[in-house]
Amino acid sequence: TALLNYVPSPEHRCELEEAAPGWRLVPAATEEEALRAAPEAEVILGNRYFLQVLPEARRLRWMQSNSVGMDLILADPLARQRDFVLTNARGVYDDEMADHALALALALVRGVGAAARAMVDGGWRREPLPVLRDLPALIFGFGGVGRAIARRLLAFGCTVTAVRRSAGGPAAALAQSMGVRLVPAGRAKAALESSRLVFLALPLTPETRGLFGRDLLRRLPDGAHLVNVARGPLLDEEALRHELPRLGGVALDVFATEPLPSDHWLRHAPNVVLTPHVGRSPEGERRRWAPLFVENLRRWAAGEPLLNVVDKEFGY
Amino acid sequence: TALLNYVPSPEHRCELEEAAPGWRLVPAATEEEALRAAPEAEVILGNRYFLQVLPEARRLRWMQSNSVGMDLILADPLARQRDFVLTNARGVYDDEMADHALALALALVRGVGAAARAMVDGGWRREPLPVLRDLPALIFGFGGVGRAIARRLLAFGCTVTAVRRSAGGPAAALAQSMGVRLVPAGRAKAALESSRLVFLALPLTPETRGLFGRDLLRRLPDGAHLVNVARGPLLDEEALRHELPRLGGVALDVFATEPLPSDHWLRHAPNVVLTPHVGRSPEGERRRWAPLFVENLRRWAAGEPLLNVVDKEFGY
Repeated sequence: TALLNYVPSPEHRCELEEAAPGWRLVPAATEEEALRAAPEAEVILGNRYFLQVLPEARRLRWMQSNSVGMDLILADPLARQRDFVLTNARGVYDDEMADHALALALALVRGVGAAARAMVDGGWRREPLPVLRDLPALIFGFGGVGRAIARRLLAFGCTVTAVRRSAGGPAAALAQSMGVRLVPAGRAKAALESSRLVFLALPLTPETRGLFGRDLLRRLPDGAHLVNVARGPLLDEEALRHELPRLGGVALDVFATEPLPSDHWLRHAPNVVLTPHVGRSPEGERRRWAPLFVENLRRWAAGEPLLNVVDKEFGY
Repeated sequence: TALLNYVPSPEHRCELEEAAPGWRLVPAATEEEALRAAPEAEVILGNRYFLQVLPEARRLRWMQSNSVGMDLILADPLARQRDFVLTNARGVYDDEMADHALALALALVRGVGAAARAMVDGGWRREPLPVLRDLPALIFGFGGVGRAIARRLLAFGCTVTAVRRSAGGPAAALAQSMGVRLVPAGRAKAALESSRLVFLALPLTPETRGLFGRDLLRRLPDGAHLVNVARGPLLDEEALRHELPRLGGVALDVFATEPLPSDHWLRHAPNVVLTPHVGRSPEGERRRWAPLFVENLRRWAAGEPLLNVVDKEFGY
C-alpha cells in the first residue's frame, strides 16, 4: 500500500498506477483518511499529513517528500529515529529558486525595490548603480540551487566563488568545469571579506542554524549585498539589524518567523527587499514534483535505487 | 584642436595626450569656454555643450558622443546635415543595460515589485509565479544590448528569439552560434503572438518611434510581460494603458516624458514596475566611456578607422 497525502489528478494517478502495477494507492483528502490508511502503508508520498500519521505508520519503509528542505520533517524525533528511507524533491525547484535569487539580487543592486516605492511617491532620483560583473559573488552551498545560481551569475560576467562543506569530490570537478572557485567551509570567513554579493543556498541543519550571525555578518565589506532564498533561521535577524546600516542591502525571501509578523522591523528597513517565501511559489494543478514521484515509485516497485535519498544525519 | 566637453581627470587627460601627441586639448567646464574653443575644434569629445557650439564649430570633422542613443543629437537638423563623422558609446553600457533589463523582467515575473509595496503594508500573500525558462522570450533589437540580454536569458534556460531589421549577415551567424532564433522585422507580429516576455532594445529613429502602438501591443498574449530599457517614445503609452489590464505586467525604465510627471497614471498602475532611467545610471569620477575616447582619439590622430561610427541615415 502507498498512501498519497494529496488528491492526485487523474493523469498523475494513472502514471503512478503504471509505475507500480498491482500496488494499492490510497489518496487522502483529510487527516482522518490518512490516519486510516497509515497502518498499512509501506510507502507514503507527500508531506501533508505525514508527521500526524507517522506514529501509526509502523510498516513504513519509504517516505517521498515534496519539499527540498528536510528541516521541518527531521525536527520530529520519530522521523529521525524510525528506520525508513527518506527522499526529497531536490532538483525540482532549482531553476525557480535560482530565478528568484537573481530577481532579489538584481532588485537590490539595480535599485528596483527602492524605486518601486519612490516612483509611487512621485519621485525621480537617479543614483549610480553597480553592474553585476563588478561584484565578486559568493554562494553558500553548491547543491542544485547553488549551482543554478552560479550558472546564471556567470552569464552576467560575475566572478563566482562557492562555499561547500568540503571542496573536493565530484563537485570540485563540476565547479572547475563551470569556472566556479570552490572553497571549504573553513575558509568561508576569508572569502566573505572579498565578496560584494552573497547568496545563502544551504539546507537548514543543526550545523547551519544561525550560521550567519554577527561573526560572519561582520566580515561582509561595507556596501555588500546579501540574499537569502534558503531558510530564515540560517540568518540571525538581530545580528543583521545591527550590521544592516553599513551594508548595500539585504534581500530576504525567508524569515525566522513566517509569515513575517506584520509589524516586524524588516518591513520598514530602508535598504531591504522582501518577498513572502515564494522562491518556491505555490503551484497550480500540475505539480512540478509529480514526475519525480512517479519515477521514484517505479524504482521502489522495481527494487531499483531511489533518487534524492536524504542522509538523515547530515539533514539533506 | 580637440574640444573636450567635460573636465578630464588628470589620468584620463594624460591618456588622451599620449593618444594624440602634439594635439591641443581644450577642456570646457562651461558653455562659454566651449563656445570659445569651438571655432578651432576639428574634434569634439563629449555631449555636454555639443549642440550649443555646433553652429560655431565650422572646422568640425569628428564628434565622439558619450551616449549610445543618437536620437537627441540627430534631432538637430544641423547635426544631420553637416559633414562630420559621428561616433557613439555603443558597447560601453551593454552589460549595465542588460543587467537592468533582467532586473526589471525578474521583478515583474517573480513579483518583487508588487511585494516591495505589499510587504511594507504588512501583507504576506503567496501567489504562483512563473519560472523564466517557461516564458518564450522575444527581444526587439539584436545590437550590443539585445545580445547581452539574450546571453543572460539563455543561462536561465529561456528560448530566445530576436527581431532585427534583416535576419541575414554576420548577426545571423552570431545568433545561430548563441542559439538565438533571428526573425526579420516583417515577421515581428507573428513572433509576438507566441512570446511571453518581450524586451525593447532598439534605437529610437524615425522608423521605430511609436513602433509599439496598439497594433503590436494587441499581439501580445494575455499575461505576457513587456520590458523597455531603450527609449520611451518607442512605446505609445496611451495604447499601453488600454492593453495593460490583460497583460502580466510592464516594466519601464524610460518614458515619453522624462522625468516622468509626478502625477502620471503609470505611477499608480497595479502591474507595473518603474525605474527612473537608470539602465545606464549616473557614473562617478571614473567614466566607463573614457577608454573608448582614448582609443578613438588615438585612431583619429593616426588616421586609422574609428570605432562606433554612426550611420546618420539609419540613426545608429
